[in-house]
Formats: sequence, structure tokens, C-alpha cells
Amino acid sequence: MKKSIVMAALFCGTLPLLAQTTAEQTLKEIYKLSLTKAKCYPWLDHLSNNIGSRLSASTGAEKAVLYTKAQLETLGVDKVYLQEVMVPKWVRGEKEVGYLQLGKQKITFPICALGGSVATPKSGLNASVIEVKSLEELAALGEAKVKGKIVFFNRPMNPEFVETFKAYSGCVDQRSSGAREAGKLGALAVIVRSMNLRMDDLPHTGATNYGDFSKDQRIPAAAISTNGAELLSKSLKSNPNATFYLKQSCQTFDDVLSYNVVAEMTGTEHPERIMVVGGHLDSWDLGDGSHDDGAGCVQSMEVLNIFKNIGYKPKNTLRVVLFMNEENGVRGGKEYENQSAKKGENHIFALESDAGGFSPRGFSIDGDEANFNQIKNWGTLFEPYLIHKFVKGSSGVDIGPLQSKKIVKVGLQPDSQRYFDHHHASNDTFDAVNKRELELGAAAMASLLYLVDQNGIVTQ
Amino acid sequence: MKKSIVMAALFCGTLPLLAQTTAEQTLKEIYKLSLTKAKCYPWLDHLSNNIGSRLSASTGAEKAVLYTKAQLETLGVDKVYLQEVMVPKWVRGEKEVGYLQLGKQKITFPICALGGSVATPKSGLNASVIEVKSLEELAALGEAKVKGKIVFFNRPMNPEFVETFKAYSGCVDQRSSGAREAGKLGALAVIVRSMNLRMDDLPHTGATNYGDFSKDQRIPAAAISTNGAELLSKSLKSNPNATFYLKQSCQTFDDVLSYNVVAEMTGTEHPERIMVVGGHLDSWDLGDGSHDDGAGCVQSMEVLNIFKNIGYKPKNTLRVVLFMNEENGVRGGKEYENQSAKKGENHIFALESDAGGFSPRGFSIDGDEANFNQIKNWGTLFEPYLIHKFVKGSSGVDIGPLQSKKIVKVGLQPDSQRYFDHHHASNDTFDAVNKRELELGAAAMASLLYLVDQNGIVTQ
Repeated sequence: MKKSIVMAALFCGTLPLLAQTTAEQTLKEIYKLSLTKAKCYPWLDHLSNNIGSRLSASTGAEKAVLYTKAQLETLGVDKVYLQEVMVPKWVRGEKEVGYLQLGKQKITFPICALGGSVATPKSGLNASVIEVKSLEELAALGEAKVKGKIVFFNRPMNPEFVETFKAYSGCVDQRSSGAREAGKLGALAVIVRSMNLRMDDLPHTGATNYGDFSKDQRIPAAAISTNGAELLSKSLKSNPNATFYLKQSCQTFDDVLSYNVVAEMTGTEHPERIMVVGGHLDSWDLGDGSHDDGAGCVQSMEVLNIFKNIGYKPKNTLRVVLFMNEENGVRGGKEYENQSAKKGENHIFALESDAGGFSPRGFSIDGDEANFNQIKNWGTLFEPYLIHKFVKGSSGVDIGPLQSKKIVKVGLQPDSQRYFDHHHASNDTFDAVNKRELELGAAAMASLLYLVDQNGIVTQ
Repeated sequence: MKKSIVMAALFCGTLPLLAQTTAEQTLKEIYKLSLTKAKCYPWLDHLSNNIGSRLSASTGAEKAVLYTKAQLETLGVDKVYLQEVMVPKWVRGEKEVGYLQLGKQKITFPICALGGSVATPKSGLNASVIEVKSLEELAALGEAKVKGKIVFFNRPMNPEFVETFKAYSGCVDQRSSGAREAGKLGALAVIVRSMNLRMDDLPHTGATNYGDFSKDQRIPAAAISTNGAELLSKSLKSNPNATFYLKQSCQTFDDVLSYNVVAEMTGTEHPERIMVVGGHLDSWDLGDGSHDDGAGCVQSMEVLNIFKNIGYKPKNTLRVVLFMNEENGVRGGKEYENQSAKKGENHIFALESDAGGFSPRGFSIDGDEANFNQIKNWGTLFEPYLIHKFVKGSSGVDIGPLQSKKIVKVGLQPDSQRYFDHHHASNDTFDAVNKRELELGAAAMASLLYLVDQNGIVTQ
């Protein structure tokens, strides 16, 4: 009986009156706490400015594991522990060099190796450049026109999309698969236009994937800044036979032991039902990973801080997971699921913040129609906090592997306009994060977790 | 008949099917144009980086008038003209000096004169400091405790408000009325905590108002940075008798002739019905006024550029007004209304963008219930563009004076979290504006004007 009333109310877009009032009051407390006593901003300050970049297997990543574990321990939650996971170790090496030789003139370009790329020969490599806009265009050219050349992928992110992540999805195949596909056709290297909607001089790194290529089949892959890409394209039009010199010295070493950092408030009524909230602790090596994804980590930690401070004890177990190695392997996310499956754990809900610490706009919901409607119907509770956007879609890369039967997965959706200005680049730094925007994101996450904890997850 | 169908449809939250489809298509064109071919960002670049700050009666303001007029003329609209207006001329003078003398130690603070403030004596002034949190607290202290002292207003913006403008409203009386009220009690000067939610070292200026005080009754008023305010408060607690040295040399001169810049597309069906869109061209003198309000000006100009480029000819006259002197007098807004009233013009709608060039979230609507519902019901058309917020409230300072009988006034509401980090401070600069966020704001404005133009304004 009770359930059907709750269900009916949910589908009318409201909670029962008392629950509604209590929820309104709790959200108010959550937001007040987050905007006045949050720890997420000083935590991020430390992660970014004292530790810095946190590429898997780096000293920074190691320090970040110890620091966040220690900070979580100060919150007085029920459990804090590390979960072992083997991660890849890729090292950029010396600053990359890239220039176009035009007679006696050299035009130098801002470039950086893509993550996972192999090095060039020690003395670098020299080759003429062929520009393409897509993998399809490359395939159409065929081996005859590609062999022995550097392939330059120059399809920009489409500015017409209001959501920048759509523009990213429509573009990132050049970075992830460009080297593999060009390698098949005998290219010597690839240069990929940075995934950035802004015109500037910063190359943006990110993973490239060689598939099942053996080491000696792999060709070097570099990113070039957006301004650099425009200039290179223009220069090649006037000088199609100019040669490009590329030198990078990156290396891949044996896998290294690292950790996911985990902290829990045990559920008072259903300790066996787990709600996960997390982000990824690793970052790329160029900036300090403040937006990607220091923000998501400290916001997840903040949920515990908020619940502790407003005295809220979740009915279900609330587990914060700071995943290792999202950027170049998702080993943390996969290992978390492996261990969880082995233990037969029951995850009912997972929330990830991995889209930057910008003003939160809403949530992307990966669940069935009933799950979506349930969360969307909480919209009126979120309206005073300017959370308006409830859409169906993917949640987060780290919680992606989670397979529990009825799990609902959600991604926080902050404003996306500035995200790719910083993504994987040297300007992903603390000064680009606004304290209040970060705190509002944490409050939105805590609010959603509170509502899930109180109301459970409906099923169709 | 037609009208009642339209009205019924409007109140059901939809337009008639054909109108809905046409509107969807037009909004798509508007957004596409704005995200790919807008001129607002390069216009703002020029205003900010080539011209710089534009305080009324300054060279910058004069150059901005000529530049924007010339740019509007390139758009091929029906009329471009200047409207004369006399504006105040206040000049900051030499860099201000403020320090606390603690025995032999001097602690120097980041301060700046408030706009309109009088100077200190040439050699500066020295006095002990009394800290208050409000005008009420000041009044309660009375003349005995205030006379001969510097009053330090130190009430911070309340971080609990999600909307930062609410926090600003709750705080700004210290800046606008502090000097007048302290002057009545015989204070020598006032120092006011900057209206800034962020802790940093930048003093934020803004207008102070002496009411009907004669020149010799006016006392100097300065802003102190938020970090400075915290430090001053702490220092005074340990050294309540320490004296503060303040020196500023600002001056007010005779009023100067300046201009509102106006451009029009004449209405094809109702040329006598005017829709105004605008921002203010003047800025404070510390930064380059990119957010306040270069952004609003170039977005308003962009509406014309968009309409021209998509080939949309408004039925009603669309008038862009770049108002002069919002910051310290609103003379432009008042003169525009004076002239308009003299000519008996019929304004049906006015839209102002003066809350920064950040990601647009929605509109604040100043009209009756029917006007509000009409605009709110267009919400579904705006949803793909992440415009979700339709609230009742004030519109803009410059369009405030407009008195036409049935006018509806609307303010663009961008995300407000970062606005007061930059407001009236030296970091209100071009680099703090994101190109896409600016363009999305312009597109939202053009879309709303299109919908008003097509559907008219309903009345109760």
C-alpha cells in the first residue's frame, strides 16, 4: 500500500507532502553547508597546487592516493581503505619538438605526444604531411598516398552543438584511432588537431589506442594546438611538399601497483545496498587536473563531509570511490567492478562527476524509463538551486563497468562551455575553478544521493 | 478568432503547430549563426583590448561611441545615430594609498576610491578605525563614537544565496550609502569591504551616493579587497587604537556631452511599435569592462547581425541602444526615456543584458502575469539551448526608466556565480569572457526578440 502511494506520487511529479517538506528542508541544509563550510575547494587547492598532475603510476598519483585517504580519514566515516589495481605507466619524456621546414625557414608548432604514443627515433623523423579531415578520408586515400608520410588529422570540433560533449564525441576518433588507422597504411606518424573549441596555442593530449598492434607496428602520435592546426593547414596549402620534423621521446614501462581510494558510511537500514559516488583521481600530466577530475574527486568527498555535518545517516551504504587510471586504461573502474562482482555486492546507484567543476546544470541518467521519470520528477526540489536539466544519457567512464542488476547510473552535468578549453591541456589548473561552482556541484550530488537514499530506486 | 486560438495555445504552453515548427526552425538558424559567424567576440576584443575602460566622459567612452557606431553602420541596418546626453565626469587620479600604522610597522591594503568619492586632503588623512557590519549598527553607535574616525563597513556578501545578485543586493547599501550616513555622524572617511564573494586582493569600485550633501559635507570613500577586509578586521581586534592612513585624489568635473548609440531595423508591419535591446557602453575605470557591460553591448549588436544574416525582417521596429553612463548616473537610460516620451514613442518590449557574458540560464521578466506566462510558455522552444530559467523580477538599470504603457521588460540572466569575482574590479577583462558563452547569450536574446516580434505581447 505504502509503496503504491509513493509510486503514484512519484509519477505525479511530487513526493508525499511530509516527504516533500522534509526533502526541501534537507536540500536547504545541504546547500547551506556546502556554500559555507565545504572542504572541497581547499582539498582541490592541495591536490592541484601542492601535488599537481596525477598521471597513473606517477609520483603525483601516489601522493594523491595518500592525501585523499588521509583527508577521508579525518571525516570520521565508517571505513576508509585502498583497493589495489595495476595501472599502466607511460612517461612523456622530453618536451616534444615539431616544426615545418620551408626552405631555410622553420615554423615551430605547439605540439605534445598523445598519451600512450610511442617515441620517434631519437633523432626525430622528417616527412611530408598529408592533411585529412576524417578516418574515412584517410581510408579512401589508401596506402599509395599515405605510406611514408605524416598524416595530419584536422577536423575541428563542431561549434554548432550547444553541448560541447557532442562536439567532442564527433571528433575524438581522430585522436583515439588515427594512429592505428594511419599506421595500417604505412604512415610514419600522425598529428591530430587538439579537441578544443577555442582557438589558442595549447596542445591537448589524451589517449591514443593502437589496438592489437605490436610495438614495432606503432607510429608516433602527437596533438597540435588549434591555432597550430590552422597555420599548418594554411602552410601546407602553399607548400604541399614541405617536410615536418617531429621528435618525441615518450615511453611505456611495466604496469605499476596503484589504488582506488574508498570511503564508506555504512547504511543504517540496508548496509548491503550500495550507492557509489566518485570521480577519478588520476589526471593527464600537462596541467594539474583540477577540472579533470580533481573536481569530481573532491566533490565526491564533500558529499561525506556534508552528510556528516548535517547529521544525515544514510539508510543504504554510501561509498565514495576515487578511481585510478580513467585517462589511460580505466583500470580502476574495471577492478572495482571485478572485486564487487566477486563479493556479490549489490549496487543500487552510482553517481559520477567527471565533466569539470563548473556550474552544475543537471544530471544525465542511465537507467530505464521509470528510473528516469523518478529522478526527473524530483526536478521541482532542485529548481531553487538552478538544477534544471534531467536527460537520458551516459553517466561516467569509471562507473561504466558496474554491472549490478538494477543499478541506476547518473552523471553530474555541469555547464560544458568552458570544459574543452582546459581538457587535457596545461591550462587545466586550479585558477580555472570557481569555488562556488565547485560547491554547488557537490551540493547537487549530495542532494541527489539523499533523495535516492530516502526514496529508493523504482523499477518498471 | 485567430487571436483567441493563439491565446489558448499560448496558455497551453505551445504555439499553433505551424508557428511552433517555424519558431523551432528559426531558433535553430539563430543559434547556428551565432555559434559560427557571430561578430560579438571580436567586437568585444576591440572594445576591451584596443579601447579599454570606458568610464563616462573618458577618452575610452568617446572612442567606444565612435567604434560601435561605425560597426553598426557596417551591418546595413536602416538607421544608426547618436543621441546626446550630458554625463558626469569623475576622475580617480593617482593610485590610492591605504595603510594601518602599528607602531613602526605599516600594513598596506589594496584599496581604491569609490566612484564619485571626494579626495582626501592632499597629504592624506589619519584616523582610528571603527568597524561596523551595517548602517543600523553605525546609527546605533551615534556621533559620540563615530566622530573623527574612519568607519569600516565589513559585512560580507552572504554566500548562502545561490543567486549571487541577491547577495549583492543584501550588501551594497554599505557602498552606496555608507559615506553619506557616516558623514552625518562626523566620520572622516569610510572604507567598504568589496562586493565580492571570492577572497582575493582586488578592491572593487562602484558608485557611492552623497544624496543632497554639499561638497564640503562629503567624506572620502574607499573600497578594500576581501582579503584586505579580513586582515584589517583582525588587525583592529589586536590593535583597536591603530590609525589608518588614507590618501586619494579623485575629482569631479563639470558634466560633459556624450552619447547613447542607437541602431534600428524598421518594422515591416508596425514600424511604430518599438522593441529595444541594449546594454551599457560605459564601464568602471579599473578593468576594461568586458563583462560589465561590454558583453551586453556586443550581444545587443549581435542581434542585428544575426537577423541580417538569417534574413529575418522584424515586423516591429528593432532598436539597439548602447546606453551611456549606467555606472554613475543612469543618464543615458533617463535621457532615452525623456526623448522617447517627448516623441510619444510606443515601446512594446525592452531587453537588457547587463549581468555578464556568462552562460545564459534564462530571463527575468518584469511584466504582468499574462506577459510572464507568455514568455515562460516559450520555454520548450528554449530547452534545446539550455535556457531553463523564467522568473519574475527586474530587468535592467538602463531600461528601467522606460515608461510606455504596456511595455514588457526583460533581463537576460546568465550564470551568476563568477560575476562578482570581476564586477567593478581590475580583473573585469576580456580573458574572463568565454566566446561561446557570449555567443549563446546573444542567440538567446535574438530568439526571445524573434518570438516577441512574431507573437506580440499579450495583455491581461
